[in-house]
Amino acid sequence: MSRILSRRDLDFLLYEWLDVEALTSRERFADHSRETFDAFLDLSARIAERDFAPHNRQADLAEPTFDGERVTIIPEVAAALKVFNESGLLSAGLDAEVGGMQLPHVVARACFLWFQAANIATSSYPMLSIGNASLLLAHGTEEQIETYAKPVLEGRFTGTMCLSEPQAGSSLSDVTTRAVAQDDGSYRVTGSKMWISGGDHELSETIVHLVLARVAGAPPGVKSLSLFIVPKHHVAADGTVGERNGVALAGLNHKMGYRGTTNAVLSFDDATGYLVGQEGHGLAYMFHMMNEARIGVGSGAVALGYTGYLHALDYARERLQGRPVAAKDPTAPPVPIIEHPDVRRMLLASKSYVEGGLALVLHAAKLLDEPSAENDLLLDVLTPIVKAWPSQWCRLANDHAIQIHGGYGYTREYPVEQFYRDNRLNSIHEGTDGIQGLDLLGRKVVMRDGAGLTLLLDRIRATAAAAPPDLGKPVLNAADRIAATTAKLWAGGDPTVALANSTAYLDAAGHLVIAWMWLSQHAATEGKEGDFYEGKRLAARYFVTHELPRVGPLLDLLDTRDTLLADLNPRVL
Amino acid sequence: MSRILSRRDLDFLLYEWLDVEALTSRERFADHSRETFDAFLDLSARIAERDFAPHNRQADLAEPTFDGERVTIIPEVAAALKVFNESGLLSAGLDAEVGGMQLPHVVARACFLWFQAANIATSSYPMLSIGNASLLLAHGTEEQIETYAKPVLEGRFTGTMCLSEPQAGSSLSDVTTRAVAQDDGSYRVTGSKMWISGGDHELSETIVHLVLARVAGAPPGVKSLSLFIVPKHHVAADGTVGERNGVALAGLNHKMGYRGTTNAVLSFDDATGYLVGQEGHGLAYMFHMMNEARIGVGSGAVALGYTGYLHALDYARERLQGRPVAAKDPTAPPVPIIEHPDVRRMLLASKSYVEGGLALVLHAAKLLDEPSAENDLLLDVLTPIVKAWPSQWCRLANDHAIQIHGGYGYTREYPVEQFYRDNRLNSIHEGTDGIQGLDLLGRKVVMRDGAGLTLLLDRIRATAAAAPPDLGKPVLNAADRIAATTAKLWAGGDPTVALANSTAYLDAAGHLVIAWMWLSQHAATEGKEGDFYEGKRLAARYFVTHELPRVGPLLDLLDTRDTLLADLNPRVL
Repeated sequence: MSRILSRRDLDFLLYEWLDVEALTSRERFADHSRETFDAFLDLSARIAERDFAPHNRQADLAEPTFDGERVTIIPEVAAALKVFNESGLLSAGLDAEVGGMQLPHVVARACFLWFQAANIATSSYPMLSIGNASLLLAHGTEEQIETYAKPVLEGRFTGTMCLSEPQAGSSLSDVTTRAVAQDDGSYRVTGSKMWISGGDHELSETIVHLVLARVAGAPPGVKSLSLFIVPKHHVAADGTVGERNGVALAGLNHKMGYRGTTNAVLSFDDATGYLVGQEGHGLAYMFHMMNEARIGVGSGAVALGYTGYLHALDYARERLQGRPVAAKDPTAPPVPIIEHPDVRRMLLASKSYVEGGLALVLHAAKLLDEPSAENDLLLDVLTPIVKAWPSQWCRLANDHAIQIHGGYGYTREYPVEQFYRDNRLNSIHEGTDGIQGLDLLGRKVVMRDGAGLTLLLDRIRATAAAAPPDLGKPVLNAADRIAATTAKLWAGGDPTVALANSTAYLDAAGHLVIAWMWLSQHAATEGKEGDFYEGKRLAARYFVTHELPRVGPLLDLLDTRDTLLADLNPRVL
Repeated sequence: MSRILSRRDLDFLLYEWLDVEALTSRERFADHSRETFDAFLDLSARIAERDFAPHNRQADLAEPTFDGERVTIIPEVAAALKVFNESGLLSAGLDAEVGGMQLPHVVARACFLWFQAANIATSSYPMLSIGNASLLLAHGTEEQIETYAKPVLEGRFTGTMCLSEPQAGSSLSDVTTRAVAQDDGSYRVTGSKMWISGGDHELSETIVHLVLARVAGAPPGVKSLSLFIVPKHHVAADGTVGERNGVALAGLNHKMGYRGTTNAVLSFDDATGYLVGQEGHGLAYMFHMMNEARIGVGSGAVALGYTGYLHALDYARERLQGRPVAAKDPTAPPVPIIEHPDVRRMLLASKSYVEGGLALVLHAAKLLDEPSAENDLLLDVLTPIVKAWPSQWCRLANDHAIQIHGGYGYTREYPVEQFYRDNRLNSIHEGTDGIQGLDLLGRKVVMRDGAGLTLLLDRIRATAAAAPPDLGKPVLNAADRIAATTAKLWAGGDPTVALANSTAYLDAAGHLVIAWMWLSQHAATEGKEGDFYEGKRLAARYFVTHELPRVGPLLDLLDTRDTLLADLNPRVL
């Protein structure tokens, strides 16, 4: 069996590159040390390998079913979640006062990557629960935290986020779910919610739905949405789970991948709900969590790509076939396919994507551990890239993994086709790639007079200036170009023109950021010898010479302020 | 329900662009006319829509099963094939003397596209049978044609091609299946064959396997392989199907897509086989058919991409969501998503891929109808591109179709996710993309002192020179660059250096060829008004301005004769 993830790479990134040990000098992490970090990483690897990975294929083949009464899920999922819940990992990153371990985000993120790589579908349940509870910890009342968030963190309850509706996926301003205030301070919530991951199942005593809805009489638009706790069952003040609330499973969606995660259409019919925070602030609360959720999606995309790469690497080392192109003797024994340059291309490209993506995810997570005005701003700018770039490029690593396996890779006898199908979701949920492009170019790089972009480019330039010139110079050039292009795009102030090619902008910025991650890793290998460090340096070189040049034509196009797409008459399609 | 294909586009390509009617001045097609062409196209569309499309999803959900005794396939497949076989389409392109209609290849190809777009899995059975029978018509004895090829063309039998083995996929020199000559002139064939599409089923009275094997005592290498007819059942001289031959189904492969097509591991155990042609010429006979088979794969990739594009187009016109970025009023009604520039980008890109790919496939097919030294040479050079380019880029159209559908596109409630899974195979079978790159750069552009590349570039330059300069000039530049790059790569004569980045070369050449297809289509719209022609002109412009620039960095890389991949120490991965 192939490795799920590379602990060697995680150790390099955490300790040699990001110097995560230094975080222990901060008060929040004072009780931690490399030993405790390692213990959590070891524990995660062990549970992921033993309890999560073995049922990954089975959960794909036998997806959850709904008989009209209840949802049935293969028992291995509940068994794995029981182990996970008992491990303390659910609240590892949270405050000690709510039972957490105050583990740095960056370490918690590395731990969780093991579960995402081992079994993305089963890992979705705790991921959703952590996001759900974290939101309540930040914005809920003490009573809400006691009644809902703590049981979620204990694993007794699970949590969801209910944003989308059948007619409103990316467009939350069109949310029509209604909430009517009652005399007792609660609300009655009615409406239909779509794409609710973990929306129904019997894996927990009850499910805490966080539901975005509009209070009766509130004006249209996103700024009048409110957020409600709507439990699947009523929960008494003493924590007892009682009768069903007015939430029904209208049906399960049948997906191409991520099949082990139930994905539900939920009907809320006069369901009892409890307002979180203030009316009209629902979306702001949700967006408070969005950075983490989007890093979580990017992280899942990295995990799937990474594990696919490792499987392909093992296969390429073992599978004997063909001879070098210069070989003349057909009786020579076949060579491992890793000897063929095109197989190496796919492997090295994949390595550059998954290790580059992993570096970005961990870099972003560490910004959460060292909050400051600058770091918060940088994280804001990076978030759409952290979300979208791995969803595209680590998926390409999954594509390469199939290709390296040849016909075998296309069969369900090998795991790589599932990784490919699973990873396809990550470009869609939590905001599509297109939405991330609009977020980056339409908001993040222009907010505060472009302070975020300036900060990002300053950091990139500092790293590039310190790199060997043949690697640093192309990155410096790309950074200069993207600054100029951004100014040019917004020079007219017309969002239609500026945003007409926002996806090309996201693609260019994404590749620049990953090139930065590679130069930064390259710097961390200085003076170190051995295959591992050679591999890092080679991947950095590969990314700068083979991948970064893609940025040129994208910026050329953007510089023309081309409006072919914005102007076209849709009838000609 | 969305259209399967665009008849309007086929009419444009066949009649307005390729002037297929002019073929009727050739003796072989003298009995044909636009009316007969149209009749075949109408018939194909009708059968594809009525008999093939409706069970496309069902065949995916209920794939063939093997109980150890027999293979079970949903009955709709046999019913569809019965209609197909009775339509005369199996032999439409073949000589009248074997019962064919002498339909031009280009028209037969257009007809078959309907079936591939409607149901790629069910269409595989006749595609394989046609290839099988055509090979025997070209290289078999009269008796072999009577006994095997004619029943295949009547639909009583079906045919396969058995090349790969479990240990030898792309590397046919490692084929180990053995054939031992018997006193009666037959052979005993023993070995294991892998990835045999249509390798077992009960859709026909018997199955005619064409098996690549090595005669006992023959030297190693591809040049000593021979080709054998090995029927599943013995067939008597009078055509009666008798007892089972020594061919057993060892198992079915379970694929990510193309699930409706059985894909088998076959065990040959002293099976009776009959030599086709001469010993040692087996691979040459197979390669004789390879141009057509590879056009068939490229055609399937186009068909899947095209139908996915049409589904996405319909969805984007109907689905209401969001408002233009410049809109301020959240109460304004939502717009069809086709109004969003990023959705338009995906649609226009997809249009440029699928209509560009379709043009290439039909152009290649027409070269078969006008055989000449020049046309044969051009087809040889184009074949790896016809095979690989649509497999990558029309698959990207399928990817875009999912993205345009958002979460819905990721579910099995919509057809686009199946198209995406199905199309993933086309980069693998009949020679992977990597193999096509080696074929193009290692053989096709260097053979005959580069005559093929010179011819291709001459044709491209002639089209580009006649185009509006803003469209023609970038294509002329790319053509000049690829000529220079090719010379530079081979200047040292070292295949390891020349071929180190053959996939980048294939990618660059592919985009150049499709740009040429677009300029040529653009020329055919001259003086014509209306949405359809505007769409063609816009897609041509899009391809030249948004897609062709990808070629620049690829050629830059190739020009450096970069050997990063060839030289790397695999231990660093």
